[in-house]
Amino acid sequence: MFSTVKDDMSIESTLISKERKNAKFPVEELTNVWDGGKEETELRRKIVKLFEDDPVLKSPPICTMTREERFTKATRKSAYIYRNLIPNNGLHPGSREFEHFSRAMPIENNLLVHMIAFIPCIKSFGSQEQVAKWLPLALNLNIIGAYAQTELGHGSFLRGIETEATFDKKTQEFVINCPKVSSMKWWPGDMGLNANHALVMANLIIDGKEYGMHAFIVQIRDLSTHMPLPGVTVGDIGSKMGFEAIDNGFLYMKNVRIPRENLLNKNSEVKPDGTYVKKASDRLMYGSMVNLRVNLPKSQAIDVLAKACTIAIRYSAVRRQGLLNPGGAEVAVLDYTLQQHKLIPQLATVYATKFAGEGIIKKHQAFLQNMAKGNISDLAEIHALSASFKASVSEQCTEGVEVCRRACGGHGYSQASGLPFLLCKITPSCTYEGENTVLYLQTARYLVKCASKQAADLPESIAFLVQPIQDMKGSITSLDNLIICFKNSAALCVQGVSKKVNEMSNKGLAMHEVWNKSSVQLVKSAKMYVMQYIIGAFVSFVTEVKCSEPIKEILQDLCCLYGLHYINTHSGEFLKLGVLSAHHCTLAEETEIQLLEKLRPNAVGIVDAFDFTDSSMESCLGAYDGNVYERLFDMAKLSPLNKEKVHQESYRHLRPFLLEGRDILEGVKSKN
Amino acid sequence: MFSTVKDDMSIESTLISKERKNAKFPVEELTNVWDGGKEETELRRKIVKLFEDDPVLKSPPICTMTREERFTKATRKSAYIYRNLIPNNGLHPGSREFEHFSRAMPIENNLLVHMIAFIPCIKSFGSQEQVAKWLPLALNLNIIGAYAQTELGHGSFLRGIETEATFDKKTQEFVINCPKVSSMKWWPGDMGLNANHALVMANLIIDGKEYGMHAFIVQIRDLSTHMPLPGVTVGDIGSKMGFEAIDNGFLYMKNVRIPRENLLNKNSEVKPDGTYVKKASDRLMYGSMVNLRVNLPKSQAIDVLAKACTIAIRYSAVRRQGLLNPGGAEVAVLDYTLQQHKLIPQLATVYATKFAGEGIIKKHQAFLQNMAKGNISDLAEIHALSASFKASVSEQCTEGVEVCRRACGGHGYSQASGLPFLLCKITPSCTYEGENTVLYLQTARYLVKCASKQAADLPESIAFLVQPIQDMKGSITSLDNLIICFKNSAALCVQGVSKKVNEMSNKGLAMHEVWNKSSVQLVKSAKMYVMQYIIGAFVSFVTEVKCSEPIKEILQDLCCLYGLHYINTHSGEFLKLGVLSAHHCTLAEETEIQLLEKLRPNAVGIVDAFDFTDSSMESCLGAYDGNVYERLFDMAKLSPLNKEKVHQESYRHLRPFLLEGRDILEGVKSKN
Repeated sequence: MFSTVKDDMSIESTLISKERKNAKFPVEELTNVWDGGKEETELRRKIVKLFEDDPVLKSPPICTMTREERFTKATRKSAYIYRNLIPNNGLHPGSREFEHFSRAMPIENNLLVHMIAFIPCIKSFGSQEQVAKWLPLALNLNIIGAYAQTELGHGSFLRGIETEATFDKKTQEFVINCPKVSSMKWWPGDMGLNANHALVMANLIIDGKEYGMHAFIVQIRDLSTHMPLPGVTVGDIGSKMGFEAIDNGFLYMKNVRIPRENLLNKNSEVKPDGTYVKKASDRLMYGSMVNLRVNLPKSQAIDVLAKACTIAIRYSAVRRQGLLNPGGAEVAVLDYTLQQHKLIPQLATVYATKFAGEGIIKKHQAFLQNMAKGNISDLAEIHALSASFKASVSEQCTEGVEVCRRACGGHGYSQASGLPFLLCKITPSCTYEGENTVLYLQTARYLVKCASKQAADLPESIAFLVQPIQDMKGSITSLDNLIICFKNSAALCVQGVSKKVNEMSNKGLAMHEVWNKSSVQLVKSAKMYVMQYIIGAFVSFVTEVKCSEPIKEILQDLCCLYGLHYINTHSGEFLKLGVLSAHHCTLAEETEIQLLEKLRPNAVGIVDAFDFTDSSMESCLGAYDGNVYERLFDMAKLSPLNKEKVHQESYRHLRPFLLEGRDILEGVKSKN
Repeated sequence: MFSTVKDDMSIESTLISKERKNAKFPVEELTNVWDGGKEETELRRKIVKLFEDDPVLKSPPICTMTREERFTKATRKSAYIYRNLIPNNGLHPGSREFEHFSRAMPIENNLLVHMIAFIPCIKSFGSQEQVAKWLPLALNLNIIGAYAQTELGHGSFLRGIETEATFDKKTQEFVINCPKVSSMKWWPGDMGLNANHALVMANLIIDGKEYGMHAFIVQIRDLSTHMPLPGVTVGDIGSKMGFEAIDNGFLYMKNVRIPRENLLNKNSEVKPDGTYVKKASDRLMYGSMVNLRVNLPKSQAIDVLAKACTIAIRYSAVRRQGLLNPGGAEVAVLDYTLQQHKLIPQLATVYATKFAGEGIIKKHQAFLQNMAKGNISDLAEIHALSASFKASVSEQCTEGVEVCRRACGGHGYSQASGLPFLLCKITPSCTYEGENTVLYLQTARYLVKCASKQAADLPESIAFLVQPIQDMKGSITSLDNLIICFKNSAALCVQGVSKKVNEMSNKGLAMHEVWNKSSVQLVKSAKMYVMQYIIGAFVSFVTEVKCSEPIKEILQDLCCLYGLHYINTHSGEFLKLGVLSAHHCTLAEETEIQLLEKLRPNAVGIVDAFDFTDSSMESCLGAYDGNVYERLFDMAKLSPLNKEKVHQESYRHLRPFLLEGRDILEGVKSKN
């Protein structure tokens, strides 16, 4: 419908090619480091290609579809992937290929909660017979299940959950009820329209006595007609900021009856006569909740920030604005120190959190091996670390995506940039799987407990909290000193708040009041604790990684930048604790600017090394060829509002006034 | 379609009523203070009621509509308002009633750029005859105009704009051309579908010579058919983060011819023989640009944050989560110090920026009176102040809205909360009407210039930059000391960066490099400068306002909280400058917590005093009655995805697998 508008040569593509020529390191090698080896890179590319080449998985750009189209498309694709693509190519959950799925999946896909929550929960909570019955059905999408825990009125505070499962001895059934509007299940993904079963967390009641939260499998829709079953009110909760393709749902249950066997009874059981039998500790449940939290940051936050960096840095290399040198040519915005100061620290965050996260995954794997042997002594530590890490990473990466988005000026608001989509994808990670503030407080509770112990009684990675403060030797900007600086700060912070808590409670203030009044500082101490972990883990990685010298140098620079940027944006914390002096801070600021300047020529290369395909980003600003303006125009043409040259519906309302205008203007003309 | 789910009594409504009983001040009086007097409150309510009662302006909730429906509805409403509602009620631009329009307008409305940019620009750039011709047409919507300045490839850097207007002596016409894809006009509101004219900013060329940017009126669509005219490619740019109802457009012009009279020629003219005549200074143009920037923060940022506070605080008063006291009842989240620490400082920001903004409007009015007399000596100061104020307020309020949104947990992601809409409305204010980073640098340039002068040569409000640092007497937390603290910090910050700039340039570094290398600190100094203005203005207001004692105390507490919260979140800046000690900081932190506790019982009352109607917020969480859960459920029922009990399109893709599941499960059953 629109005339073709095209330049003979795109200046922008020429500019980005120059950037690539100027990069001072082998990009492919950095990709291998990122992936964890050359073989992993190849495997990832194979899987990504398999998905991207599949014609069934093609669809129009997300930013041109309505929510309803996005939902339908995502459901169709996911059904195809899980039932055809994956089994037909012999890719099984747990296989090495599976590790790369998050990079290969279409940008929007459904049934994810079915895969990552419903199925694992059956495994965690179900007896062997229950797993044998339900698991194959679920894996084959013969049943589609939601994980129905959160209610309209309660999320983080599990004990507040109101849905009830009352045992009816006569019929050997549980009767599920939501006693109030606020007890309705609310938010679970896949639940509104696609699921026909739900794993319902409900308060078990036998003979009028409450036994707390248990997991029940409840069928909610008919398997032939897909109609909601009697007593079930289920539907989509409506539009959200993020995850628009998913049918997050509501589920109100009134006297819905399920057989006794549908209580998942690995840990506890209800006998036919109503006897309640506890078989295993609930603490084991935490082990599986930690699992999700440990694996979440990479695909849901770190990769998202890496994409945002790719978009913003490529765009900043081709977007020109103003003259740095009055006599010279217009320069790329990436040549401005302020733009570097916005974007390059985000790159550092991607690397820091990625490698620190891998450290946690390793710790968690060791924990799981111990747990299999019945040893859960590390549970408290891994919980405290993974909780604060999830909170810190989701916060840092969300903030980073927003910095990248705003650094793209006006075009960063356009859905065609892909950046609003990334922001809406990442920001919910601050709230789901544990609200960040709640998680920080849980970590702080552990830290305050540790602060009252002897070093010998603490895990090695925590002992520094109660050991003497270390001195920094030499420049503040060395990696070793950064570690010391953050460790000292974390220790002083935790000790400070612990002392305050003790003083207040010694004065006779009730513990819950002490805790509430100290909570701002408690959160700060949890943040500083996890920061010292991230810095330490990143430094270890950088020190140990085997790679060529130019790559090593880039990683060291990013590591140093990460620490210094945090110090410079939170200098008050370090100064108040007396860990750093004003002079240190000045040096940290100056060094940061120098590092930005040094990393600048490699910036495009570093984001190239993330190796995101164009179709995995759907971004007109971030495509590999840098041809941003033609892409924006091509995308705009697809706007549903452009279907006709005149939008008839809106024109209808304006037409009478415009015709008046025509008459007046023609009158003026004829008079002339 | 859905069963009715309703409680006999909403606990939430009872809770919010209790909050209101506990408020310790007369809410209506605070509303009057906010509005600027009892009469203004009444007038505002009258206008709001006029709009809200009008049946033509009713429509379904925004979160249940597609973008296309939103666009059509907004256009219909705006046409009705400007052509019927306003003239029929004798409400004229410039009238006292008009001041309250931003509170009365439907949440989404179109033709705004036509009203606030196209029309004012005709007045600013047009000769008397031109104004006489175009203004009545525009006011009556006989023509609808876009303000076409920004291009695909250029925004902030005006000299980079590429569209050309070449004078053709033979035909006495200008020939408008976009030489490249990147020269296409891009972003202007109303331009894509509704406008039939555009005020095009283009580079004037006469006989091959360039004369820089000028404003031309270009007709782009036919007045009878609304079809794009020959040579014009125009349409909607697609979906955005925010302002989805508006048809921000693209406009590509190829050999579009307009009569010579269509150059707006108040300041400069092209004679029939091609002679170029300059009639007035371009500096006058800045005066009118400042106008928009001075008036923007209130309706586009401060009121938006006030709404977000209303929603988050009302919700936090009825949302219950966990036990503060292990033996006690579940408490409202607003009882947690951490929740107060998130939300109540945002309330303080609303008040601080509102009253500081009114100070700038007054300064600007005085400036306009002087300008009318030919005196523009205050232009530099008002520009520097309004630029950094717009940047700082848009940043603070955007951050505040996001804090409010996240403080609402999961429901803050739901569009039904109204919060994602507010975030998408406010965040663009960081970029439009001057990108914030660019604005801060403009302010900094002025400040550095001032720092090299004598106090006597500077405007009174700037002289402190070069005067001796003042001592604080007594407690850091007094309002007087807060002013001193921020003034000292601003002065030291500006002096510090000025010294650095001088040193570097004395060493022979080129000025543009000096500027680039200092830019991080330059931005910091502009931020601190505008903060001292805001604090000073808020303290003045609080000191001078006539009101009852309880209101005075609330305003004083909010003022103190605003200053202390900023100090506590930016303590590094104050410590590095030596303005505050670590001891001061500890005191500031403790005092902040005390103020939160003190303000807590009045929080719901304070947001009630903003007096937003339920329909002006479209928020299930923020409605006056506190009945959040029933409202969320009622809204969810309206989700377009719930039209049928089974979503046929998605079910189609899943059905084969589900039928397999039915057969397997029935097989299991029959075996049992």
